[in-house]
Amino acid sequence: MKAEIIAVGTELLLGQIVNTNARYLSQGLAAIGIDVYFQTVVGDNSARIRQAIDIARSRADVLLFTGGLGPTMDDLTKDVLADYLGRKMTLHEPTMKVMEELFASRGSHMVESNRRQANWIEGSIPLENTAGLAVGNALEQDGTRYVLLPGPPKEMMPMFEGPASRWLLSELGAGAPLHSRILRFAGIGESKLEHELIDLIEAQSDPTIAPYAKEGEVALRISSKSADEAAALAKIEDTAQQIRSRLGDYIYAEEDISLEEAVLRLLRSRRMRVSVAESCTGGLLAELITGVPGSSGEFLGGIVTYTNTMKNRLLGIPLEQLEGPGAPGAVSESTAALMARRVAETTGSDWGVSVTGVAGPGTTEGKPVGLVHLGIARKDGEADVFTINVGGNRDTVRIRAAKYALYQLWLKLKAL
Amino acid sequence: MKAEIIAVGTELLLGQIVNTNARYLSQGLAAIGIDVYFQTVVGDNSARIRQAIDIARSRADVLLFTGGLGPTMDDLTKDVLADYLGRKMTLHEPTMKVMEELFASRGSHMVESNRRQANWIEGSIPLENTAGLAVGNALEQDGTRYVLLPGPPKEMMPMFEGPASRWLLSELGAGAPLHSRILRFAGIGESKLEHELIDLIEAQSDPTIAPYAKEGEVALRISSKSADEAAALAKIEDTAQQIRSRLGDYIYAEEDISLEEAVLRLLRSRRMRVSVAESCTGGLLAELITGVPGSSGEFLGGIVTYTNTMKNRLLGIPLEQLEGPGAPGAVSESTAALMARRVAETTGSDWGVSVTGVAGPGTTEGKPVGLVHLGIARKDGEADVFTINVGGNRDTVRIRAAKYALYQLWLKLKAL
Repeated sequence: MKAEIIAVGTELLLGQIVNTNARYLSQGLAAIGIDVYFQTVVGDNSARIRQAIDIARSRADVLLFTGGLGPTMDDLTKDVLADYLGRKMTLHEPTMKVMEELFASRGSHMVESNRRQANWIEGSIPLENTAGLAVGNALEQDGTRYVLLPGPPKEMMPMFEGPASRWLLSELGAGAPLHSRILRFAGIGESKLEHELIDLIEAQSDPTIAPYAKEGEVALRISSKSADEAAALAKIEDTAQQIRSRLGDYIYAEEDISLEEAVLRLLRSRRMRVSVAESCTGGLLAELITGVPGSSGEFLGGIVTYTNTMKNRLLGIPLEQLEGPGAPGAVSESTAALMARRVAETTGSDWGVSVTGVAGPGTTEGKPVGLVHLGIARKDGEADVFTINVGGNRDTVRIRAAKYALYQLWLKLKAL
Repeated sequence: MKAEIIAVGTELLLGQIVNTNARYLSQGLAAIGIDVYFQTVVGDNSARIRQAIDIARSRADVLLFTGGLGPTMDDLTKDVLADYLGRKMTLHEPTMKVMEELFASRGSHMVESNRRQANWIEGSIPLENTAGLAVGNALEQDGTRYVLLPGPPKEMMPMFEGPASRWLLSELGAGAPLHSRILRFAGIGESKLEHELIDLIEAQSDPTIAPYAKEGEVALRISSKSADEAAALAKIEDTAQQIRSRLGDYIYAEEDISLEEAVLRLLRSRRMRVSVAESCTGGLLAELITGVPGSSGEFLGGIVTYTNTMKNRLLGIPLEQLEGPGAPGAVSESTAALMARRVAETTGSDWGVSVTGVAGPGTTEGKPVGLVHLGIARKDGEADVFTINVGGNRDTVRIRAAKYALYQLWLKLKAL
């Protein structure tokens, strides 16, 4: 089964944005056993979109579109495809209802263009958008499958992972269904992980092992295509067991949850709560944790101290710890330990987690970009401190540091 | 003059890397007046590279390749194109000399595959690689121009900016360069913005107006292609002025910066500092601000209070304000005002910004998802409060709320 990814949007051709969707979908398709042979980018232009469809149909079985589902005049993908396939557009009533209620609740007026987002190609499967208004589409005609996803990654990703992947798998299932299991890793980089498993990866044929990286986390999807479900699952389990025996300490989940969700689940089961004190991550650690619905049961609060005065004022770190000749400084193991203990005390949490380091671009206190100290303190106890050197730019350092702090907390909770 | 960018590399189709080259080259080509109508990604496969050349020749005047110039067996671009055009490969002697000297100086032996990098399509113009070994190529045949650039951005960028751009400009003679200006908006959604400007957008031809949106922000690029720079800039300015007269209060910048960066610049020029108190955004507001390098000059700290106890303990909000019969509750205008004032006091900042609301998925205190109250307090002053209803899921509510808070702060700072 061969797929072509067609990203629609003049902003891509002008170089205003990077086509990160193509990368994400390439990985996602590989993970469910679909090969990508071409990626195409085309502008918001009917004739050229038609031309791209013509070419892609001749060389692929699945056409995955992103972009052009929104409300504006530039959003053409659905109209062009409907016209190309000789189908009509209809209004998707459930989406219209949601939109009408939404606008009514805001007390604002729905403009005509908003209705376009609820349009839908007749006879297709609507794909639910949990993060926006534009409904997606999936359909089959003359042996070619078409999947229409929105352009914004936050809307595209859940739609692909949820209804679009399910539809693709059910369409492919007519042949041999694909069985798969996901292993989710933290605390280990993609290259190290690959290095440790290189013999398994190189020898793979059935099951296949596909790595799937996002910042600070890696996942492996082990897949086997077979009509014999029990046999496929046994093969997958055998490979999973080999991986677990080598890298078990890094596997935080064998289902599709984030590291922060895994940490929150452990906290819930231990009836414990956490607070965080952040310097270089600047609120990212709190933001990751509170991104999980229901996190208010286990997350009490976060204190972002971006200056020494604030570390002193909000966390009670002595200034002589932070400044002056011979002081350890803000970026130090002892400051990380103090921050973790003090935030646990101040908030009355069972756990305090701290991050202090150098996110860059410049050095801090003469310390290099990427140097990060983490503290994990148990209520009324000492703090454990970890030091890492992470590569990359400011954003990368921040996300890796936050994920590593979550990983260390996860290890401690698991061991309880 | 129309160009197509063809990136060659199976790693792109597997999603192992993001095609940042396409973005860079699209911007670079626009800057020298060449339109990009398609971007294509193809794997390291002779037949499919040939197919991509066939298609691109039929719809573009310039084919720009990146990738596949290196020493390995997978690096096919030069060989396939030479074969396609019926030309021979020859060894580029100056490159060979450089390579021989390099290997000699390292005391290492040059393997046969290294020679491939010095190969060169007969009759083409070699493009110097100042950052690596693989020589680039430029040639014209039957009216189509071909430019071959290496895949690694560090080698590709100087080659494009130097010899490749020079060659293209000389081939095109006096092509008309593109002039453009960007207007960046906050506090207004993409559909409303388009609705307000629909007559301008529908009548556009020169200059063109292209909207592009990211969460909580919208941008418009106004572009005009002309050899007469002054005339083009005058047209652009005329359109910009019409947009400003309608929507000036929403335009936070006319250059490529984020809203948080615009806020930090205003704070810097006013010699003021800000702190934030967050409930539903859970650290996102602090994270956005601290994502800007150098933000520690203007951002003091953030307090994330995810429970009523924390709002009381860390911000000193009276519990009777938050809980009990008749209390306004955590999600209320008066709590937003108190949070903003208290965080400014606690941290000693000139400004305190607060966000409290319902990010979902469930309701809070019986209040609906998407209801958000913001407070903006000046040191020792009263707080102004804003209430918005934002659509979308948990992530969307959070990002829109955070951006709206930044927008309101920006308005206040601008008015000073």
